[in-house]
Amino acid sequence: MFRPEITVVDCTVRDGGLMNKWQFDDKFVRHVYRALSEAGVDYMEIGYLSSRSAFDPKEYGPWRFCFAEDLKRITGEGEKTIKLSAMADIGRIEYDDIPERSENSLDLVRVACYVHQVDTAVALAEHCVDKGYETTINLMAVSTVGLRELNEALEDLDKSRVPTIYLVDSFGAFYSEDIDALVKKYMERLPDKTIGIHCHNNQQLAFANTISGIINGVNFLDATLYGIGRGAGNCPLELLLSFLKNPKFDVRPLVRCIEEEIFPWAGKIDWGYSVPYMVTGILNQHPRAAMAHMESEHKESITDFYDAVSSATE
Amino acid sequence: MFRPEITVVDCTVRDGGLMNKWQFDDKFVRHVYRALSEAGVDYMEIGYLSSRSAFDPKEYGPWRFCFAEDLKRITGEGEKTIKLSAMADIGRIEYDDIPERSENSLDLVRVACYVHQVDTAVALAEHCVDKGYETTINLMAVSTVGLRELNEALEDLDKSRVPTIYLVDSFGAFYSEDIDALVKKYMERLPDKTIGIHCHNNQQLAFANTISGIINGVNFLDATLYGIGRGAGNCPLELLLSFLKNPKFDVRPLVRCIEEEIFPWAGKIDWGYSVPYMVTGILNQHPRAAMAHMESEHKESITDFYDAVSSATE
Repeated sequence: MFRPEITVVDCTVRDGGLMNKWQFDDKFVRHVYRALSEAGVDYMEIGYLSSRSAFDPKEYGPWRFCFAEDLKRITGEGEKTIKLSAMADIGRIEYDDIPERSENSLDLVRVACYVHQVDTAVALAEHCVDKGYETTINLMAVSTVGLRELNEALEDLDKSRVPTIYLVDSFGAFYSEDIDALVKKYMERLPDKTIGIHCHNNQQLAFANTISGIINGVNFLDATLYGIGRGAGNCPLELLLSFLKNPKFDVRPLVRCIEEEIFPWAGKIDWGYSVPYMVTGILNQHPRAAMAHMESEHKESITDFYDAVSSATE
Repeated sequence: MFRPEITVVDCTVRDGGLMNKWQFDDKFVRHVYRALSEAGVDYMEIGYLSSRSAFDPKEYGPWRFCFAEDLKRITGEGEKTIKLSAMADIGRIEYDDIPERSENSLDLVRVACYVHQVDTAVALAEHCVDKGYETTINLMAVSTVGLRELNEALEDLDKSRVPTIYLVDSFGAFYSEDIDALVKKYMERLPDKTIGIHCHNNQQLAFANTISGIINGVNFLDATLYGIGRGAGNCPLELLLSFLKNPKFDVRPLVRCIEEEIFPWAGKIDWGYSVPYMVTGILNQHPRAAMAHMESEHKESITDFYDAVSSATE
């Protein structure tokens, strides 16, 4: 599948950081930056934009904030080799704490929101547009949104000055047929926007659903190295780049980065397919119950987890 | 997706046994038998049919052979609670060593073959038909078969007395679009046959490709508990049954069996997604090089593996 418009956004540090409070050292982040650049990936999402007041910097690593000086330590003095993105969480970043684009190394700000926050998200994203950034709005947990609500949200997004809108399967609940139907709707309702997709792997469908998105015309694709990310993780970047036939991509730097940087973390944090994540995915629930179970000492007691979650939803 | 014709074949013992020479104890096999029965799965593929002369019983466990007396130890004296299947490998089973269906507990014999063996496979499968068995032919490694060869093979299969023909993605090389195209061809060329699908998970697509098969009309579906199987493993049965909306299915017995029987094996044998299996899948190669790498002491040296396999295919 070679379509020149296809744009790949790596979320290794941002989404992987959800599992370790962004305690990646600079060596890790620099290696990811270099590997993504060499692999021809379009954007590296390096963390979240947060105000200092929102999180304790003693507890959370620098990529929960993405301050200009931290970014500079990664990109060095020369020209940047890949565009950088940060995600903005509504309520955790003050407008005044967002620098002008010219004042730091970020190119893209992605605003994540739930459906009831669309208006707030549009305001925040347009504020970022005015500060010179490229922007997206990532509408999360669409698998729980009713038809009328979704139509209204898409109408608001269509009228916004935000050029790219993401379909986000936050709970890993979608099958390819859901992606087909939703992308068609997004394309119809947002005729002048670029559509993006961000999938989770609760049912081992993150990569497959990303492919379904591509087939239906989605052009912004999220992935992470070896699928690292919250809970069941994400679409694996090495699979995605192998699928995309654009000759600009090279998988080898990713393989090396996985070996040297991701494998050591695989022993310390627990992401990827497992039955508890499957269960919350199938039940179309936030993975928090599964994450708590997987962090407990009885994480192999999957039958107890199944019974508890199933009976709670009966 | 509720279609009454859909038939699920669990291959946990047969395909999982490729990783441990079928050294599952009776407790394991009995629990799988009971769990599959309770879950409403249609067939349990319990092993291979082999002649005593083909393998050393000191090295290989009973499910490399599937002798009547071993089957009896699992099913007990009462009525069977699930239909049993065994796979026949061409060249490893003498006709005379296949009992009449009435003489053992097997219902289904599945003949696995490569494209150049189709005539031999038809003869063996029809011999099994004559002995009273249900049969399938599983045409392996279709991702390496040329168009003319495939058309000829399907013509031969169409003329056979074997009612069910499998599409097998032995190398985990297919994307959903490949499944779409091939299933359409199988349906056209084999209008009176039931079509089956057996996928491998090298690219995390075994489940997704099985769904693509279902959407295109495939009615025999292979899966294993927690995806256990050779190399990257198979379509996970717990995901498949959750997707199929047939009310006869119940996932809970599978979850319990995974917890009690599969987890202990996960510490001893190594299956599931990993970069070496991804690489052979993408290159459309047999996983043997990746398996050897994963069994070596330097299994984390995935960059070396990538370089060796990539340069060998340049």
